[in-house]
Amino acid sequence: KIVELVKEHFAPKKEQLLGGEKIVITAGPTRENIDPVRFFSNRSTGKMGYALAQAAKDLGADVTLISGPTNLTPPTGVTFVEVESAANMLDAVMNVFNDASVVIKSAAVADYHPKVTFGQKMKKKDGDLAIEMERTTDILKTLGQKKDGQLLVGFAAETEHVEEYAMKKLQTKNADLIVANNVSTEGAGFGGDTNIVTLFYKDGHHQDLPLLSKKDVSERIMNEVVNLLKERSK
Amino acid sequence: KIVELVKEHFAPKKEQLLGGEKIVITAGPTRENIDPVRFFSNRSTGKMGYALAQAAKDLGADVTLISGPTNLTPPTGVTFVEVESAANMLDAVMNVFNDASVVIKSAAVADYHPKVTFGQKMKKKDGDLAIEMERTTDILKTLGQKKDGQLLVGFAAETEHVEEYAMKKLQTKNADLIVANNVSTEGAGFGGDTNIVTLFYKDGHHQDLPLLSKKDVSERIMNEVVNLLKERSK
Repeated sequence: KIVELVKEHFAPKKEQLLGGEKIVITAGPTRENIDPVRFFSNRSTGKMGYALAQAAKDLGADVTLISGPTNLTPPTGVTFVEVESAANMLDAVMNVFNDASVVIKSAAVADYHPKVTFGQKMKKKDGDLAIEMERTTDILKTLGQKKDGQLLVGFAAETEHVEEYAMKKLQTKNADLIVANNVSTEGAGFGGDTNIVTLFYKDGHHQDLPLLSKKDVSERIMNEVVNLLKERSK
Repeated sequence: KIVELVKEHFAPKKEQLLGGEKIVITAGPTRENIDPVRFFSNRSTGKMGYALAQAAKDLGADVTLISGPTNLTPPTGVTFVEVESAANMLDAVMNVFNDASVVIKSAAVADYHPKVTFGQKMKKKDGDLAIEMERTTDILKTLGQKKDGQLLVGFAAETEHVEEYAMKKLQTKNADLIVANNVSTEGAGFGGDTNIVTLFYKDGHHQDLPLLSKKDVSERIMNEVVNLLKERSK
């Protein structure tokens, strides 16, 4: 810990290209409770989002990291908000959205949650069981509708038709940039320390990044954020 | 790490009360996949099971720890088998059951899994969704039916009617001991470092343990295992 702080102190400081920017980053999975013991979740580990928070902070941004349950330690110097469900995540994002200049939604938020959450552990019975699910509020779409100058970056984790789904997401969600990956590709996606992403832009072009560490991917994404903010202020 | 090994080396060695015993311990949650991204799981973190594996090893047992996904490091010197789903867990347990003298089932195995696991990420649609679930194989019950001299210890994690459910489990599963707790009680259950359990015995009596660290609970349970093995060999 001390070694880390000393190293950080003597590391060449990056140019503070995001100084003065308020950046909100969401990370990790959400958990949707069926009862006090059982839940739905997904394979997101939060590594991508925590790396983005670190990269944004290194460029001088004022960072709020809103995270579902992970085992990661938040970067020092960022405001950390821990949430559990998709509904909690929505509330936490809406609380800080108005003051934000950039929102990066890297969390893997549940699309569905159980219609009923039981207060006591559901006892198993013989036979089958249908769990009735309903849609959660689409956070990216909500932000896209409400945005008032904020730069909006979304993620698309797919296992097929990546380009098609990413372009559709860019348009229907009113996002400025979509970071898409095929999570079933070796070296990409959940859990690992590397990722292979493609950046999709509003004007229809896209940029493929090679296999990179999640740290390097984060730095590349933050550079794009810097560029998009510059273009905007022209 | 080195400090730990040195400490261990010089620690007073416990009496090897379980020397020569082959003990299988299951731990953690299971994950039941809906698709490559989404799954069902539960709040078990594996702490209780890993503490039991350590306690059994400290008493000289030959320990196999079969664990669902957790963030814990298995104790040194135990055979470690990592599994994901309830079906994987069943296979792993059956592989070692015949040679075991004691099986302690502390894992929180899913009771239900989706009838269909999709090969590609399910795309969300407008409207509700019913997920069709079917029962997984009841591992404790299966072991209870097949047991041939093995001592069988089960766990019951409940949020209400703990005694009633535990006694029922003891009888219907043909277990020798049930360790029951109310996971909604402060200081007991998933995630924390302490537990409050009650031990239920075949002859109908039970023993309440106070709030203890999971390490201490584990040592108390292993003492009971030693006693039950002694009784059996009379």
